[in-house]
Formats: sequence, structure tokens, C-alpha cells
Amino acid sequence: MTAPQHPGSLRGLRVIEISTSVAAPFGGQILGDLGAEVIKVERPAGDDTRHWAPPAWHGESIAFMSFNRNKKSIVLDYKTESGRAVLVDLLRDADVLIQNLRPGALAKAGFTWEYLHELNPRLVYCEMSGYGHQGPRAQQPAYDPLLQAYSGIVSMTGEDGGEPSRVPVSLLDMGTGMWMAISALEALRRRDQTGVGCHVQNSLLQTALTWITSPLIGAAAGNPPPTRLGSGFRGVVPYGAFPTSDGHIFVSAGNNDIFHRLLGAIDSLDLAGREGFATNPDRVRNRRLVQDTLGERTSRFTLAALTARLAAAGVPHSPVNTVDMVYEDEQVRALGMLQALPHAQVADLEVVNLPATFDGEYVPLTKAPPCLGEDTVEVLRALGRTDDEIDALVDDGAVARPFDTAPSPAFPAVLA
Amino acid sequence: MTAPQHPGSLRGLRVIEISTSVAAPFGGQILGDLGAEVIKVERPAGDDTRHWAPPAWHGESIAFMSFNRNKKSIVLDYKTESGRAVLVDLLRDADVLIQNLRPGALAKAGFTWEYLHELNPRLVYCEMSGYGHQGPRAQQPAYDPLLQAYSGIVSMTGEDGGEPSRVPVSLLDMGTGMWMAISALEALRRRDQTGVGCHVQNSLLQTALTWITSPLIGAAAGNPPPTRLGSGFRGVVPYGAFPTSDGHIFVSAGNNDIFHRLLGAIDSLDLAGREGFATNPDRVRNRRLVQDTLGERTSRFTLAALTARLAAAGVPHSPVNTVDMVYEDEQVRALGMLQALPHAQVADLEVVNLPATFDGEYVPLTKAPPCLGEDTVEVLRALGRTDDEIDALVDDGAVARPFDTAPSPAFPAVLA
Repeated sequence: MTAPQHPGSLRGLRVIEISTSVAAPFGGQILGDLGAEVIKVERPAGDDTRHWAPPAWHGESIAFMSFNRNKKSIVLDYKTESGRAVLVDLLRDADVLIQNLRPGALAKAGFTWEYLHELNPRLVYCEMSGYGHQGPRAQQPAYDPLLQAYSGIVSMTGEDGGEPSRVPVSLLDMGTGMWMAISALEALRRRDQTGVGCHVQNSLLQTALTWITSPLIGAAAGNPPPTRLGSGFRGVVPYGAFPTSDGHIFVSAGNNDIFHRLLGAIDSLDLAGREGFATNPDRVRNRRLVQDTLGERTSRFTLAALTARLAAAGVPHSPVNTVDMVYEDEQVRALGMLQALPHAQVADLEVVNLPATFDGEYVPLTKAPPCLGEDTVEVLRALGRTDDEIDALVDDGAVARPFDTAPSPAFPAVLA
Repeated sequence: MTAPQHPGSLRGLRVIEISTSVAAPFGGQILGDLGAEVIKVERPAGDDTRHWAPPAWHGESIAFMSFNRNKKSIVLDYKTESGRAVLVDLLRDADVLIQNLRPGALAKAGFTWEYLHELNPRLVYCEMSGYGHQGPRAQQPAYDPLLQAYSGIVSMTGEDGGEPSRVPVSLLDMGTGMWMAISALEALRRRDQTGVGCHVQNSLLQTALTWITSPLIGAAAGNPPPTRLGSGFRGVVPYGAFPTSDGHIFVSAGNNDIFHRLLGAIDSLDLAGREGFATNPDRVRNRRLVQDTLGERTSRFTLAALTARLAAAGVPHSPVNTVDMVYEDEQVRALGMLQALPHAQVADLEVVNLPATFDGEYVPLTKAPPCLGEDTVEVLRALGRTDDEIDALVDDGAVARPFDTAPSPAFPAVLA
């Protein structure tokens, strides 16, 4: 099997990704970005995200294209006998296996850690789940929003006095992909030292516990759980989004000096001595009053006028941008992280590179997100299968080439 | 310098962390968890998080204890001549330098990438910033909440029709720490291959762009920006938190079959044929009506009764737990990720381990979060400084031992 021409440090390593949705695909994409050859094994219906509802781009799923560049796609049904033999061949000299199927599904198909470790002692096996590797809920499937609720994040999100809200980014799915990448890099380094692979387990719930590290340690200390504060910050007032006549602005007054500069900038020095406004602890105790009073003052200005005044006064602030504004933003453009990656169906595709530079360079984008089964034939040929053998595998329903199978309209979800 | 007795793959490597707040400390902690010797260089006043307001635990900052285990602390003023010489000695044969000072501050003190690379060509230099390494805002300091606003995340968070909200976990700070760890592992692997270190740059803004990958690609496709949906999910209704008579429950009806089971469970099959309720696309179009109608029905039940009914009907659901409930939760307990780590001031300290197991084991917790300057003397002795030389450094104000300097009450913030 030819190694891809990436300059990342994982060049020459092969990753088999049996995955769907977000967590495992994102983790696999990180390893591909770092130079590994990532072979994504898909069911005939393809990764669920291929069918997530609009928005799409020229008919291609944005969710799928978000998490599957720098990968090959093979359609493989390893529950057939001949398909199973292909997967065994793929794993025999792979370096990493990633999977996020339902708990126990891959083991039930015969691919237990014991079997994998015997087949290929150098294999690093990264297994991902919802609720973790042990405990009463270990066998339950889970999704990012449900685990946000289970782990306390939903209870903390949203307005004071309002309804609990979800965090609208996949911080558990994508976060678990990142922890998987960290864990795989650790396991590969251990293997460099010992010659032996290991069994890595990550889960959405464990990722969630890490996001709430400070509140959890607070709970261990006997502190009450965090309540919802809208855009506010627990220990500092004012710190959050304030209205103007034509949009919100985010303001931070981390100390009293900045607070006084803020008051000057909004023609409100009269508030400096008002009861409940004098010190940060006072303001934290009178959070609602202070926020409402300041909000009434900030709403007298336009966003542009207030921005100019805060900048002149040296008060940390930010516009509350929407994503279309972020896409066009001068600073975002200057960072160069949004990059063109031409795709067969989406000639003008742009993707978001890995958020890091190495000696000033981003990692190279070498391959657009594949169509379903795009690389089935290439991967099988590299395993030594002849064209006749490949035809037989297709006839068996064990593998599929592009357009041997058509994506079916399915679960009409879309990533927020 | 003695390597710590960790079994992680970074054993024998030394990391110098010149850091404050969350992003760099969290990234450094990950490398320490993986076995590196992490020497945290603190100003005489200490990491800002040491002074973040209550909640504290026996007087120790929970924010600091969240991100600084498995590290040594040295108090060092490298702007003094003799302090600078100590830092040079530390860096001369270090493997990784992490820093998240204000943009340009370390270079201004003479520690440019060019200087560092000449001093120690094997050094991996991880530099973190708010707005990234280039562009009009590159020199501006930044904080997680401000960057959440700048990057569109605040605009997407909170109730439909309500005010923009902040994500109450440090997904940019902690996320950037994770990307730094991934980048450092990549750079160390490159160094294993080339013998030469490199200059890694990460930033909160780049991390934010990665969290919003799908909406950003959507913006490139010309789609409108995501709006606030409270606890809802863009492409599926119902999917979110619903009221009961004594708390919220999170429900997911990913397809029509589950939707009908949900209706049965809440004695509401009458809704199945109601206009606007028939299919998921109908329900997405009538999101508010469907949510309000279902919420009226779910609020007729107690949380316990509804939980039992949904479980019996096979409808994916979760309690909307608060963090104290998470801390006590049976599944969370079973995972064993919250672990005791006795601390001089907090004998019953519990911390949150790295969210991964390797062959079933968590990484070892070898050292409690250090008090300020706890390891100053040990680190200096390992550099070959005599006790007289150490006393002279203390007299110079170049270094401090524990209690040579007292934390001053400062920025009264606390991590959410």
C-alpha cells in the first residue's frame, strides 16, 4: 500500500476508521492531517452524516465534508465472509484502528481487542463510546446533545431565569475526536518504545467531565452547582453581551480601573458611586441590577459608535459576530485557515484547516472528502486483490465501488 | 534533572511552561499527564488563576488546581539578569517550551524563536495567542468569552428570541490547550524523525474556527448563519429539553418511529395526525408550535414518571442534570475518572483525570497542583546551583521559594 505524500509525522502509518457521525471521523481526520493514510470503512449506506439534512453544497453534505478530508473511502460489509477477510487483511498491518460503532457491535462481529491484538500486536485500537467503557450505562448508545444534558452542561447554559440551553457546537463529539487523537499519539509513542500497541478507550461522557473540570472539583469541595448566567461570567460584573441600538457588543471589565473607563465611555460616570456598583464584589451581588442599568445606557449608542468609544477608552470588547460575519472577517482571512480544497461535486469547496501552524505553515490538504467508495478499488488492489476478485467481492455484496450503491435519504439531522 | 516516575510515553522529556490562566496550563498538564517533567515558571505573584475568586477549597483556588497537577512550580523573574540565566539554563536542554504570555512579551524579553532555536535546535516551541500569529489583531490580548463573541459562538447560543449567551465552559481556552498538546506531540514525532524542533503556533480564534467548522463551510456555501435554538437541534424536532412538573428532561426523536413512541409515552397519540406534526420536516417548520405543545404535555408528568415511560418506550432521553448530580452519578462514579490527589492544603482533593484509558488504566496522578514556588529549590539544584547561589538568586529577586512571596488578592474572576 503506497503511503500518501504528506509531510506530517504520521507519514507511512495506516489508520483504519470504522466510523460514522462526528467523533471518530473528526479524530481520524486529525490523524490524516498529520500525514497518516486514513482508510474510512463505510457501510453501503455510508456515514450517517452523508444523509444529514440541508444545508448541503451542490448536493454534498456539509457535515460530511467537515470531518472527512485527507481520507480514502472503501465501502465494505465485514459481516459477509469475503468482506470480513478484506477487513482482516486491512488490519493485519495497520497501525491504528478507530471505531465508534454501537458499544459491543464490532466485538460481536468477531473483532474483539483480544482478537485484534493477536492478529496484529502493533495495532493501536481506539474505541469510542457514549457513556464510557464500564458502568451501568456502558452499553447505551449516546449522542452529543443527550450527553450535554446528562453531564450538566445544558443545565449551565442559557439565560438566568430562562430555559436550559444546548451548546450549539459539538463540543463532546469533536472534543472526543481530539482526545482520541491525543490518546493515539500517546499510544503510538509508547509503541515506538515497547513495540506493542494498546487498547485506547475514550467517550463522550469522559470528555464532558473534562470540560466541567472546575465545577466538578467545586462539587467535590461542596460548592453549589453553577447556575445559568446568560452571557455573563461568574466572578466578574460587567462581563458579557450588552445591547446597542443595532446589535450586541461584548464587554469585559476585569478590574475597577477598566470599569471606570467603561463608565466614562458610555457617559455614565454617575454610576461609579451608586450603591451596588462600587466594587466588583458589589456588582457580582447586584448582577441583574448592574447589567440592566448598563444595558439601558449602552443601548443609547449605535454599535459603531460604542465600539469606537470602548476602543478609545481601552476597554476590552468584541462584536457579537454571526458566522457569516466571521467568514468575511479581516482577521480570520489573515489567518489563512479557511482553505480551498477542490471536490468533484463542489469545485469551490473551502474547508477549515487544523488550528495550528508548524514553522508558519498549516498542514497540507491532500485529498477532498471522498465520495462513497471512491477508493474501494485502489485499496483492494493495494491489498493484492485482482480485478476479477474485486468484481466477485462486489457481486457478493462485500464491497462497493462508487455508484454501486446510492446513498438513501435517511436521518434528516444536521450538525448545528 | 531527574525524570519523574510516570509510565507515560513522554517520560524523560522536559517541558518548560511559562503560562497563566487556562490554555497553556491545561496544555502543559496534558503533557505532564503523559509523563513529561513539566516545570511551570511563575511570576512572583503566581498564575492569575491562583487569585481567581471563590469558590476555593481550604483557601486553594479551584481554577488553579483544575489545570496544574503533575507539574513543578518555580518562581522566576527572567527579566532580572540572574533570573534570565536560569531560564536560559532551563531551556538549553528542554524538549518543549509552552507560553501564553501577551503577544510579543517573551520575544521582547529576548526569547525570540530565532534565539531559542539557536540556543537549543531540538526545542519545540509552542506559542499560544488570542487572535493568531498574523493579521491586524495579532498583537491584541484576548480572553475566552470575548473570543466566543468574536467567533460567532455567542450569537448561536441561547434561546430563540432571547439574548445571546456564552458557552459556560472554557471551550476556547481548554480547546487550545488540547490543540497545543496535539501539535506538540506532532512536533516531537517530527523531531524524532529529523532531529530538529519547530515553532508551533495555536490560538483561541483558530480553535474557535474549528468548533464552528460546519457553519463556516455553510457560510462558504452561501447559507445563512445559524440562529439561536435554545436546547433545540437544527434539523430534528423534537430534540431538546422539555419541562416536567419537577425538572427538565432531554428527549431525542431522531425518526418518525421514535416520535410515535414518544407520543404514546406521553398519552398524546392524538398529535400524530395533527397538521404540522406529521413528518420531521413539518415539525422543523413548526418548531415553536410543536415544542410548546409537547412541553405542555410533558409537564403533566413528574420527572421520574416520564423517565420510566420513555425508557419503557425506547425513546432516547436524559435527565438535565446539574453538576452536583453529575458528581454523585452512578455512571460517573463507575468510570473512576474522578480521583483522589492529596494536596498539602486540601487533603481530600479530587481531580478529573485525562479522559482516556490505556489497556483499561488511566494515566497516573503523581503530583498535586504545586503551591507557588514549591519546587524552586529542587529545580535550581538540579541545574547545578549551590545553596549559596540559590540564596543569592532569592536576594536578587530573581527566584522565590514558597512563602518568599505571598499571593496578592487580584483579579477576582472564577472559571465558570
